[in-house]
Amino acid sequence: MGESKSVIVFGADGYIGWPMAMHLSKLGYKVVAVDNLSRRSWDLEGGTYSLIPIASMETRVARWKTETGLDIVWRNLDMCDAEALDALVAEFMPEAVIHFAEQRSAPFSMISREHAVRTQVNNIVGNLNLLYSLHSIVPECHLIKLGSMGEYGSPNIDIEEGYITIEHNGRSDTLPFPKVPHSFYHLSKVADSQNIHFASRVWGLRATDLNQGVVYGVQTEETAMHPELFTRFDFDSIWGTALNRFCVQAAVAEPLTIYGRGGQTRGYLDIRDTMACITLTLENPPNMGECRVFNQFTEQFSLNELASVVSAAREKIGLQTDVVHLPNPRVEAEEHYYNPKHTALLDLGLKPHFLSDTLLTSVIEIVEAYKGNVDPVLLEVPSVDWRTGGNEIWEKYANRDAFKFNAEKTAKLVESLRR
Amino acid sequence: MGESKSVIVFGADGYIGWPMAMHLSKLGYKVVAVDNLSRRSWDLEGGTYSLIPIASMETRVARWKTETGLDIVWRNLDMCDAEALDALVAEFMPEAVIHFAEQRSAPFSMISREHAVRTQVNNIVGNLNLLYSLHSIVPECHLIKLGSMGEYGSPNIDIEEGYITIEHNGRSDTLPFPKVPHSFYHLSKVADSQNIHFASRVWGLRATDLNQGVVYGVQTEETAMHPELFTRFDFDSIWGTALNRFCVQAAVAEPLTIYGRGGQTRGYLDIRDTMACITLTLENPPNMGECRVFNQFTEQFSLNELASVVSAAREKIGLQTDVVHLPNPRVEAEEHYYNPKHTALLDLGLKPHFLSDTLLTSVIEIVEAYKGNVDPVLLEVPSVDWRTGGNEIWEKYANRDAFKFNAEKTAKLVESLRR
Repeated sequence: MGESKSVIVFGADGYIGWPMAMHLSKLGYKVVAVDNLSRRSWDLEGGTYSLIPIASMETRVARWKTETGLDIVWRNLDMCDAEALDALVAEFMPEAVIHFAEQRSAPFSMISREHAVRTQVNNIVGNLNLLYSLHSIVPECHLIKLGSMGEYGSPNIDIEEGYITIEHNGRSDTLPFPKVPHSFYHLSKVADSQNIHFASRVWGLRATDLNQGVVYGVQTEETAMHPELFTRFDFDSIWGTALNRFCVQAAVAEPLTIYGRGGQTRGYLDIRDTMACITLTLENPPNMGECRVFNQFTEQFSLNELASVVSAAREKIGLQTDVVHLPNPRVEAEEHYYNPKHTALLDLGLKPHFLSDTLLTSVIEIVEAYKGNVDPVLLEVPSVDWRTGGNEIWEKYANRDAFKFNAEKTAKLVESLRR
Repeated sequence: MGESKSVIVFGADGYIGWPMAMHLSKLGYKVVAVDNLSRRSWDLEGGTYSLIPIASMETRVARWKTETGLDIVWRNLDMCDAEALDALVAEFMPEAVIHFAEQRSAPFSMISREHAVRTQVNNIVGNLNLLYSLHSIVPECHLIKLGSMGEYGSPNIDIEEGYITIEHNGRSDTLPFPKVPHSFYHLSKVADSQNIHFASRVWGLRATDLNQGVVYGVQTEETAMHPELFTRFDFDSIWGTALNRFCVQAAVAEPLTIYGRGGQTRGYLDIRDTMACITLTLENPPNMGECRVFNQFTEQFSLNELASVVSAAREKIGLQTDVVHLPNPRVEAEEHYYNPKHTALLDLGLKPHFLSDTLLTSVIEIVEAYKGNVDPVLLEVPSVDWRTGGNEIWEKYANRDAFKFNAEKTAKLVESLRR
């Protein structure tokens, strides 16, 4: 890749952001890791925590330097602060920016009006500020923005990668794929996608909008180097994916809880494939003025299939798993057609990992190791309800004594990792 | 219409909002007129003003009472204040709400990052707050939301009313019409439309999203009753429509300025037709859970055609008009296919007025009467540029001496109307 290129990773304290920052640093990029630590403060606010203790950003970058000799520049910065963002971009003049820095939980966005508004304002303003910074300071910079497959919903036709050619009344046009998103969070991503597409048309910005599926696994080459480099693992009903929840439920001998009939089908990918997808995207930039969209996932599963994969993986090491179906707190189709295309990244050279192979080593064994950290309250149902909100569960999480215990326990574990 | 129904008009101090409040009051609705007067404060901030002096909301509702004996309840309230909004909705328990209360200028939204962010936050948060108020307090209330034809852009296929049935790879679905909007303002409306559609699916709200064309004319039956009931007329390059600008340019013997080649085609309607469209929408509510979309306009014109209609109308009263083409400060197709459907409101009984008939009586004569109020600086080019923003013109407007003069003059005129 020749000269050392400057890349800013926004949201570098997050589940994917931190491994991504290390991965690109390892590949020789000059990485600037930016975060406002909102995810940690939402944990403190709501009583949730990463099952795997995670070190502070300061500790992480120091450990990274010790292990590899490589520098990652760390900056605590809120993208909603436009002036600070401009100053940062002007300081580092990035050739690419990778934008993970959004409130990324659908249930969080559905808890209450305040959570919906906070999600949409945070995500839309941060992204809009970034578009203006790039336009005014580094107009040739490649924006890599993390979207979500959940923006599309589950239409009854094949989902194309961002655009669809529509034949209508004897005429034809290629237009943005119509979206029917799943939550106020996903709606914020749709608004982002629209703003980015506009900036590419009007200002000639170059962007890749990655509609990512559900990411699983916690081990990359880089996180595995030292416990202080670990990334987070969420399992509660607000921040955890269904797959993570299943793995934790199984580990603490609870049945896996499927919401509704379980035909809800989504795209999935291994966190190592996320690393590869974003690296491929970075190394193959679009033309100026192009707003490229990739659907970033490798396999698709229904909830029922997902539960079966977890059960089968556990059975291989002699563990028994039960499954129950519960009333669905979300409003979504429980049986539906689902056929999203995802060939663009494969065409760029992606070699996928598969869930059935990864699950045991990168999820289940780790969950088993940390299952003593599980506060069972965080697995209780019902979760946030799409019709009536989640103030009740939010209060329950935030006000429990057990949280204080766990928060202290987690803090101690983190401290122990600093030695 | 039987019992007196409660309707809240949000944005009731605006160009359409105020005539709408009176129109519904006249029809027997119990009207609550709500506004945060942001449009007047943006005028003060930016040095723009209504060519036709307009009275304060207090004076307007007092005059309305004197002229008709009817009460309009007036409330100064910001929809971004969720608690105040909830309290208002709980107090009046409306059967319908009509939501005009948004920053509605495309050039304003393109001036700078700050203007883009302000536009999107103001519009998206106000609308999201309203959705939550309706959901929690009056779930059967009919939301009538003003969208814009500019949300669609100018696709190369027929524009349907909100939804399109797509045949794709042997399957079919009816999905939201894909949108390629014209500005950050229009993007805020697209985000609103997406949020409303979601609220109808998840909460069962009933809504009508009106994608309105460009509205012209200032006289309705109600505004014509007394000068203190007049509505605003914007002509500057930030708040005025091209049509209004043409009429004012012609009146002060300046050539009509067409941006680019002039093939830019949009939908138009008379303000009296807006009154009729919204009344028809109100009287024919959708089912619970339905998010209905109407394209609300009656005729379509290119800029070149619009200039010809203005020239022809002026020629009828012996006035001469010149036309010039200028470099286009916007990024838009200057020659394009444009065929949006607009049959839903005609099917409900709309009887359109036509521009060529209305122009003389409801626009040109009024502009002639008030042309002494025109500050020519507000007609100067270039206007806000879609690529580079509009800080320069914004500064020029805001800092000129002439503005102070005109503001004082306008204030005096308003005062004189209070006698």
